Amino acid sequence: MIVTVTLNPALDLTYTVDALVPHGTHRVSAVAERPGGKGLNVAAVLAQLGEPVVATGLLGGSTGARISDLLAGHGIAAAFVPIAGETRRTVAVADGDDATGFWEPGPLVSSHEWTAFLERFRALVGSGDVVALSGSLPPGVPADGYATLIGLAAVAGARTVLDTSGEALRHGLAAGPDLAKPNAAELAELFPTADASTAAGASAAAVLAFGARAVVVSRGPLGLVASDADGVWEAAPPERLAGNPTGAGDACVAALARGLRDRTPWPELLADAVALSAAAVAAPVAGSVDLDTYHRLLRALPPRT
Amino acid sequence: MIVTVTLNPALDLTYTVDALVPHGTHRVSAVAERPGGKGLNVAAVLAQLGEPVVATGLLGGSTGARISDLLAGHGIAAAFVPIAGETRRTVAVADGDDATGFWEPGPLVSSHEWTAFLERFRALVGSGDVVALSGSLPPGVPADGYATLIGLAAVAGARTVLDTSGEALRHGLAAGPDLAKPNAAELAELFPTADASTAAGASAAAVLAFGARAVVVSRGPLGLVASDADGVWEAAPPERLAGNPTGAGDACVAALARGLRDRTPWPELLADAVALSAAAVAAPVAGSVDLDTYHRLLRALPPRT
Repeated sequence: MIVTVTLNPALDLTYTVDALVPHGTHRVSAVAERPGGKGLNVAAVLAQLGEPVVATGLLGGSTGARISDLLAGHGIAAAFVPIAGETRRTVAVADGDDATGFWEPGPLVSSHEWTAFLERFRALVGSGDVVALSGSLPPGVPADGYATLIGLAAVAGARTVLDTSGEALRHGLAAGPDLAKPNAAELAELFPTADASTAAGASAAAVLAFGARAVVVSRGPLGLVASDADGVWEAAPPERLAGNPTGAGDACVAALARGLRDRTPWPELLADAVALSAAAVAAPVAGSVDLDTYHRLLRALPPRT
Repeated sequence: MIVTVTLNPALDLTYTVDALVPHGTHRVSAVAERPGGKGLNVAAVLAQLGEPVVATGLLGGSTGARISDLLAGHGIAAAFVPIAGETRRTVAVADGDDATGFWEPGPLVSSHEWTAFLERFRALVGSGDVVALSGSLPPGVPADGYATLIGLAAVAGARTVLDTSGEALRHGLAAGPDLAKPNAAELAELFPTADASTAAGASAAAVLAFGARAVVVSRGPLGLVASDADGVWEAAPPERLAGNPTGAGDACVAALARGLRDRTPWPELLADAVALSAAAVAAPVAGSVDLDTYHRLLRALPPRT
């Protein structure tokens, strides 16, 4: 079983307008609502691939209830812990050219709610599971929150994939996740002296992230670099895809979590993760992949040893 | 009892940002949520004044549930009919200078839901009540929806105040409401030949609105002009107030509904309505009034006969 953790989910709203006029009033012609937050994107991609997955995390208020409804509608199993605060929204206003984003702050999580989540997590995660920990921590969750979860997962015999940034990443790495997936910018923020723009640099920087057993650095169209105690592996998409890069990193985490579960060797796993990331770029919204693109790229990407 | 009808309510969100950057991503520093829609503003002002009021209308989905929670928190009695669609949101993005608005379309109301509302309305409204009918009609509600409600109220022995625009106003007037409160622009839209910018013109245009027993035309800082079979009355604020004019018309309707209930003579009623409208301008958000301003202006506004 793969368990995705989303501590700071969001209801993602996309408003379609003719043109954005600052200080004007806009009649929104179309409203799209979807469950957002990186961990929910990972869960949605795994569900689309037919992989067993349970989404957990924190949800509150009427926005949280709406996300629960949407997850049920998408057939995604959910085991969220209720909180008193209102889960945040994000609003993306799409005009003909581009989108303008508005991100609400996350709700304040009480120490009692965080303790309740730790109990739920302990009950949910068992031996052989893979846990994907994705995204930011909401206010009130300790900076070492992911470190605590990584420790609990290890005690339960489960393995972990960590995809976050900043202090949450720094603290999480110290707890020794089985796999960390920073992107080049997140790695450079943590280890400013390393040049993560090259494969060698990404590998060197990843070595600095000594807490994790393995590190996969995502570098957008340049592809992925994996490093562990045994060596360095690399894979890149065979073509440049136009589309929406939001959610590509989450599709990558979905592939990595599945590969960790199946103990897939690196060359095969990286090819799969590159193809699934590119298939997310080809899909119109985050949390979904274009399956035709996925299968086409898998055929074009022979695993490199 | 005063009953307010809000067929197309909204959850009004105000996002505070440093500056609006088109095609940028904004971290929202503060989120304010309030029940919106003109009828809910009327109910909120009456509740603030301590007047018995019940808010009815149509609410659906998690956004509707959130509005119910907020109304309960404000101590406003509510008797809404549930609908399957999601109640709309409005988002106002406030930067240092001004606000940029995004209005979602209203949910589609089924004929079954509309029939259920008519039954609830019939059960709710009794002899001696005053019904305030405010705002736009959502998709699916017939254009003569207010006309139907005005007819049902009359049969029950209740009186009606109509505050809407366009086709909903045109159809509603034909049903003979006890009072219509268009603003000058709404009246001019319906009767383009009348010049509603002057008191005489507003009165003449109001006479054209022959369906209503009385018409009060609101003209912003120029004040109010009332016309009925017996004559024309006028009142204007004694000073120009800076502030937020959104909701001033709804505060005016709150005063008019109370005056209709108490059969207050025109000179006294118009003075009260002008003072309460101005007190809404002085309050930071729609649906509330600044009570100090209200009482100060009431003293400065001797009823004119």
